[in-house]
Amino acid sequence: MYVLMDIMVSPGGVGTSVSPYIAMCQKIFEDAGLTHTMHGYGTNVEGEWEDVMAAVKRCHEVLHEKGAVRITSHMKLGTRIDKDQTMADKVTSVQEKMIAK
Amino acid sequence: MYVLMDIMVSPGGVGTSVSPYIAMCQKIFEDAGLTHTMHGYGTNVEGEWEDVMAAVKRCHEVLHEKGAVRITSHMKLGTRIDKDQTMADKVTSVQEKMIAK
Amino acid sequence: MYVLMDIMVSPGGVGTSVSPYIAMCQKIFEDAGLTHTMHGYGTNVEGEWEDVMAAVKRCHEVLHEKGAVRITSHMKLGTRIDKDQTMADKVTSVQEKMIAK
Amino acid sequence: MYVLMDIMVSPGGVGTSVSPYIAMCQKIFEDAGLTHTMHGYGTNVEGEWEDVMAAVKRCHEVLHEKGAVRITSHMKLGTRIDKDQTMADKVTSVQEKMIAK
Repeated sequence: MYVLMDIMVSPGGVGTSVSPYIAMCQKIFEDAGLTHTMHGYGTNVEGEWEDVMAAVKRCHEVLHEKGAVRITSHMKLGTRIDKDQTMADKVTSVQEKMIAK
Repeated sequence: MYVLMDIMVSPGGVGTSVSPYIAMCQKIFEDAGLTHTMHGYGTNVEGEWEDVMAAVKRCHEVLHEKGAVRITSHMKLGTRIDKDQTMADKVTSVQEKMIAK
Repeated sequence: MYVLMDIMVSPGGVGTSVSPYIAMCQKIFEDAGLTHTMHGYGTNVEGEWEDVMAAVKRCHEVLHEKGAVRITSHMKLGTRIDKDQTMADKVTSVQEKMIAK
Repeated sequence: MYVLMDIMVSPGGVGTSVSPYIAMCQKIFEDAGLTHTMHGYGTNVEGEWEDVMAAVKRCHEVLHEKGAVRITSHMKLGTRIDKDQTMADKVTSVQEKMIAK
């Protein structure tokens, strides 16, 4: 089952500068070989369900090891059976409607 | 790793009445033996990471089988290493602060 | 326009104990006369769009005044034009499907 | 109060092809003069609180007019008082940490 995910990881108890922790998660997605794109409020990640979920768990484990005493992740998970679709397809689909107007 | 989750499952392509699909997920959490409480905008679920994630995957699989051509789940996942905490503990903690005022 | 909202307010830069800040928001919803119910991962709030949004803004303002240097709120906002529906209606609708099984 | 928002608007009762509705919201953000960037699972929008919220309300109103009988929006709202920060600053901050590794 292929999944399109958006994830925002919020480490707690590490002060207000959380970007080093976000960078650790980016590296985990990269090392896992998952397609991923960061935006201003999270990261789009896509791949097989098991691979994506293993990477999310790894983020929590690594950030706890690095000092985050509590972590909250906000995720969107999308699956569909009517057609194959990537994140890039979704963006293109909206952009086409905007041009068509 | 114990996880506190909040999940809202949104099946697409099934019309505007989604409650039968939500009920199917409730049954999956129940059958998995996970502590779960429904509220107006999702369900609190808690348990071991692997058990909770297996139930989420099962929700997507079952809803697709039952006709949902696309599904988006919105989730919050919380883990912490400083202390054990349940969903009930979190609510009680806030309520105590309200009484103390 | 009537709106059903779920909100989780996350104050940053205040240490790991955020419950006093959550309690402040509960009081704001209460003082605004909005129907609200706390759960383990947020609060269901319902009312007229303008009233609900004014309360959300007030939460951010008050928490900043009380020392939260950064705040992230995660919200779900639901509106519908086919029928009137409260949060309680939504929960009841799912529960009826569960009993019917 | 300046706010960084991420929003995903989900129209219901319109079938599985929601991209025309998403395109309508993009146009609303554009017409409102707000800085906005679409990604695979939503849109980053930033500006003054009142302007951003007025645009969100307008999205719900327009989509209802165009046939969406129910709409759920998932939003993240971030405010901070310690420094000025744009969405672009957030992404740059993480990228610098990744290069520094």
